[in-house]
Amino acid sequence: MILEVADSARVRTLTLNRPEALNAFNAELYDATATALADAATDPEVAVVLLTGSGRAFSAGTDLREMRRLATDAAAPGGGHGFPGLLDALVDFPKPLVCAVNGIGLGIGATVLGFADLVLMSSTARLRFPFASLGVAPEAASSYLLPRLIGRQNAAWMLLSGEWVSAEEALAAGLVFKVCPPDELLSTARRHAEVIARQPVASLVAVKHTMTEPLRAGIVDARERENTAFATLMGGPANLEALSAFAEGREPDFTGL
Amino acid sequence: MILEVADSARVRTLTLNRPEALNAFNAELYDATATALADAATDPEVAVVLLTGSGRAFSAGTDLREMRRLATDAAAPGGGHGFPGLLDALVDFPKPLVCAVNGIGLGIGATVLGFADLVLMSSTARLRFPFASLGVAPEAASSYLLPRLIGRQNAAWMLLSGEWVSAEEALAAGLVFKVCPPDELLSTARRHAEVIARQPVASLVAVKHTMTEPLRAGIVDARERENTAFATLMGGPANLEALSAFAEGREPDFTGL
Amino acid sequence: MILEVADSARVRTLTLNRPEALNAFNAELYDATATALADAATDPEVAVVLLTGSGRAFSAGTDLREMRRLATDAAAPGGGHGFPGLLDALVDFPKPLVCAVNGIGLGIGATVLGFADLVLMSSTARLRFPFASLGVAPEAASSYLLPRLIGRQNAAWMLLSGEWVSAEEALAAGLVFKVCPPDELLSTARRHAEVIARQPVASLVAVKHTMTEPLRAGIVDARERENTAFATLMGGPANLEALSAFAEGREPDFTGL
Repeated sequence: MILEVADSARVRTLTLNRPEALNAFNAELYDATATALADAATDPEVAVVLLTGSGRAFSAGTDLREMRRLATDAAAPGGGHGFPGLLDALVDFPKPLVCAVNGIGLGIGATVLGFADLVLMSSTARLRFPFASLGVAPEAASSYLLPRLIGRQNAAWMLLSGEWVSAEEALAAGLVFKVCPPDELLSTARRHAEVIARQPVASLVAVKHTMTEPLRAGIVDARERENTAFATLMGGPANLEALSAFAEGREPDFTGL
Repeated sequence: MILEVADSARVRTLTLNRPEALNAFNAELYDATATALADAATDPEVAVVLLTGSGRAFSAGTDLREMRRLATDAAAPGGGHGFPGLLDALVDFPKPLVCAVNGIGLGIGATVLGFADLVLMSSTARLRFPFASLGVAPEAASSYLLPRLIGRQNAAWMLLSGEWVSAEEALAAGLVFKVCPPDELLSTARRHAEVIARQPVASLVAVKHTMTEPLRAGIVDARERENTAFATLMGGPANLEALSAFAEGREPDFTGL
Repeated sequence: MILEVADSARVRTLTLNRPEALNAFNAELYDATATALADAATDPEVAVVLLTGSGRAFSAGTDLREMRRLATDAAAPGGGHGFPGLLDALVDFPKPLVCAVNGIGLGIGATVLGFADLVLMSSTARLRFPFASLGVAPEAASSYLLPRLIGRQNAAWMLLSGEWVSAEEALAAGLVFKVCPPDELLSTARRHAEVIARQPVASLVAVKHTMTEPLRAGIVDARERENTAFATLMGGPANLEALSAFAEGREPDFTGL
């Protein structure tokens, strides 16, 4: 299964399970994750969703091979369809979402944290927002959600520089709630999720609704703005050079290898 | 007096003085506090208001006995009338408000901090936002003000889990400006209030006006959203069970005892 | 030259160069800085602007002698014209702006940080927002940008008290990204600017555009609100007393001397 689903104590754990590709999102994984969130939303036995990755990565983000095909081949099938679908599912997910960042988080593997209600991170994990390095623009409303969460300067440094962010830096900036030793991450994340899951679901939904409703219009605007910029830059000279560097192995850093 | 009022060096200190009930707000205390804020707003001798509690609590929040009566008896007199009145007074208070959290702050005793311009907290005090645990929804625009002050993840943890928040955690999250040893809290808070009170009142009002005006519409929307959710959940099964647990002494934690 | 301009590795360094006046902004420096930002915006060789000061100050803010003339002499020439011009240039500057705060930052020398994408500060530098102490109101949209960056309580303390803010306090509050020993400040700031400047300019512009567009309306509103309050208070009794104290040397603190 490309996405593992396991329930315990009203917490549904979703594990991105494409370890050979560092849990990069291809069309199948986008759809599986979006569908799993929609299912958890309506399942009365689920109070909280915990999202993590299998193997040594949290998620390497959008599959760059797929991105390259889209950037260079106008006739390529719309493999990117699943990305907005996942974002819609994150925006609409009405229950608490806890992320356990077990390894590298890249692209959507980092920007997904903007939609999380709680993030725990392994002390050895790292995050990267490589949009400028790829010659494109921010995505997933990160241009709006990150500054709100960690302040303009931290967000600007991460989005402008494309540098790796350590767990310690992520914690200091406020991008994550707690950093754990690698072998304690999942148990600690689960313990936090279970504390939340003991509350009445209707109240959890009310808390999340009242907290996220003020962000809804800003997220819509940000996604439009980002998509416009992305469309202009994708397939441009800087983007093509970056994708070629990746394809030819000259820039392995885009996958954290 | 249920609310003590004392002036010194252009600082008006309001002390919640119902220590036998951990300074829980009943109708009388709601009204006294709202009236005192309105008086301080127009008194030209007052530059700053300092709010604290007598005894070992800051405030245990809304009196749960009163809440239970309202939740179970449709014919009960509208004892909750004073709560929106206090919120209106906090929203409209035009001068700097400094809070000295001397002991436990629960419910409105914690959410009031969202309206403070400066909070100092005793190192032994604790805060709790027990809305989910009580089967209800956030209040006092906390769903809007907390994420702005301390980021979505810290706010989500506090509002979703209903766990106690230590002074150290409150400081790290940015919920309070400074933590003091218990016996230095009041003098330190007063010193900060007096530094502010030395400035011209018209400038203090201008600073506060320009800082809070951008929040005004968001607070109105949040209160409406929260009230709608609250009305749906109050008197529901989870709420009634929590209130019964409290009434029967099975859940003393709602008052921090 | 009142403003030094130097290019290296796609980073344009602008150095406020009026050290005998602690780099206070007079009409000429306002205009030179605004013009330099406009030039950098359109120059394809410039990816990032680095702003710093020469001598022992970053900037002492608006020249108080000029402010006093404006406050007391209705017929004085509009020397303050350059201030809104600089703000417009900051609001519209489309590329990353890095500030290296080498010494005291006062007034606009502190509020300019609200427009920065990254701030590095010398460990011996200090900041001050003296608006209340001068009997006036906040400026440069600081009433809106500061609370977003550092939270309401930190911002309220700085704007209400008018107290000096140390580098350590600025870092803890999130007002600056990094504090450096004085002799490493400029090289560290330049290294950060160069990391950013290696990215494609079109992507840097897209990141900054998507990050700042959500702030644009709020900045316009804040400037209007602040200007209204400022106009009411300027030339009033508290303002005239503060300016006299400064002119007579009774309050040298307004320039950090």
